[in-house]
Amino acid sequence: MGEDQAIQAQETKSFSLDDFVYERTLSNNANRKVIFTLGKCHEMPAIVILEKISFTDEQFNGTDDTSSILKNASLEKIMENDIYQNNFCKVDSELNKLKATIIYPATDKHISKYSEQNIYVFNETPELYKSVTLPCLEKEQFNCDWVYNVLEHRHEADRIIIEDLDPEIGFMLLPDLKWDGVTAETMYVTAIIMNRNIKSIRDLRECHLPLLENIKSKCLTAIKEKYGVNSNQVRAYFHYQPSYYHLHVHFNYLKYDAPGIFCEKAHLLNTVIDNIKMVPNYYEKATLSFTARENDKLCAAYKSIAE
Amino acid sequence: MGEDQAIQAQETKSFSLDDFVYERTLSNNANRKVIFTLGKCHEMPAIVILEKISFTDEQFNGTDDTSSILKNASLEKIMENDIYQNNFCKVDSELNKLKATIIYPATDKHISKYSEQNIYVFNETPELYKSVTLPCLEKEQFNCDWVYNVLEHRHEADRIIIEDLDPEIGFMLLPDLKWDGVTAETMYVTAIIMNRNIKSIRDLRECHLPLLENIKSKCLTAIKEKYGVNSNQVRAYFHYQPSYYHLHVHFNYLKYDAPGIFCEKAHLLNTVIDNIKMVPNYYEKATLSFTARENDKLCAAYKSIAE
Repeated sequence: MGEDQAIQAQETKSFSLDDFVYERTLSNNANRKVIFTLGKCHEMPAIVILEKISFTDEQFNGTDDTSSILKNASLEKIMENDIYQNNFCKVDSELNKLKATIIYPATDKHISKYSEQNIYVFNETPELYKSVTLPCLEKEQFNCDWVYNVLEHRHEADRIIIEDLDPEIGFMLLPDLKWDGVTAETMYVTAIIMNRNIKSIRDLRECHLPLLENIKSKCLTAIKEKYGVNSNQVRAYFHYQPSYYHLHVHFNYLKYDAPGIFCEKAHLLNTVIDNIKMVPNYYEKATLSFTARENDKLCAAYKSIAE
Repeated sequence: MGEDQAIQAQETKSFSLDDFVYERTLSNNANRKVIFTLGKCHEMPAIVILEKISFTDEQFNGTDDTSSILKNASLEKIMENDIYQNNFCKVDSELNKLKATIIYPATDKHISKYSEQNIYVFNETPELYKSVTLPCLEKEQFNCDWVYNVLEHRHEADRIIIEDLDPEIGFMLLPDLKWDGVTAETMYVTAIIMNRNIKSIRDLRECHLPLLENIKSKCLTAIKEKYGVNSNQVRAYFHYQPSYYHLHVHFNYLKYDAPGIFCEKAHLLNTVIDNIKMVPNYYEKATLSFTARENDKLCAAYKSIAE
């Protein structure tokens, strides 16, 4: 067989479910109901992504029996208490399809992209911050040059929403990189402070209250003016641990489930201000919880302590 | 027909899918694949919540044909480009059930709870708690009878994971109603305290530290033993405002994006304990942010103050 024929033979072997042999699950998003599995098909790696499909109103208001998801459905009771009951519900497979995305043949990069890392929550006492976190982040932290480029108008100057150049209480407000800059429903902007000596909320003290109040008041006003979103519909918060150690505040539309707004990661600006007012050195004394992924250096450092 | 007979007749009419007539969709979460529909059954309002169920590894590594979701599945191509293809996938209905939660008969409050609405964030000072929140919740709060049914073993006694009957530091740990009770990836259990005089974290003081420490230590141990989830992979938190005013703690798998884990709603158990250790009356003095939906009485009350 010549080389051309060999290539052609290889090319004609297309993916088929019958020839797919499951090997392992790369990751499983239980919230979005999507699973990423790896297997082989004709001896070559294949990724099969299965996702449950969202419901539509049409599945309920159909007039004939065949169009309604609840017709011919059957319930199997799990539990019942008072007016509440939980069931499994078996429905016609034609009305309950999945979405299947196939990547075939898949490369190592695809496999890595869809593989899941474990995530852990740790409690950082003030002592652990000094002995473990601080040395680790000083060694490992991402370069902050891009932040300084922004603050010095060398990059993104045309994107600035508002700025206050005061070296102590000043900041710059910009659309977040993750935002398209247009869709109000997913509004996401970030205030980066001028002061280069505050790494995270851990460093915040009573003397920083004017900075925090300044950011809060001016940014909420600017967001209202520019995007028409009222201050009582804005989520304003810090991340701990942050992705870069130069203090910044996230602002997004309250209804939008932005990434990283979970209680183990996000600290409301209002709560931070209130904590410092109650206890001036709150963030020097507090035990702060944070999460880390398996491959993070900080994770390895904290896991070695626990063991 | 006498009054007794009328009541009995009413009570015996239980929910059935065949008698359910769909009226409208209250809300539809396309991300989580869950739909909240309202209809009538025997002339009384019923809420039917349908949710697609997460995948499990077991659905793929089953050895016999009947246990594997991909056996006997068929693909219907949507698009194909190079090594990527998108399909609809029809699978056996036995292997692709839904979860159906029924609330019957449903009250106006249930209907409002599941209807799509605008959401606002408010800052509750200690003064506002006393003058606005407390009077409002005393008038409007959901009935807690179902909680007492559980605590007195009249309902769900077979579902108890562990219990500690001490009236001061005791609690009962149960699978959350939102959980199917099986899928480890979406593990969600709730500890309900025995003491009936603590409405929410707002009421927590130094004297409650033994209760909180007891819940933390025993529940994390039980979760590890029963579900194999380590304490550093568990998210333990309170809601503020809670959906019912009898103190309870939520526990779920850290990787699972459970509803209501956002920073404007969820307070980590560890943070609550640490705050009280730092300031014994922290929750008496703190300004607590919370969110409320347009139709909530609390929302109307707080919006009228702001104006």
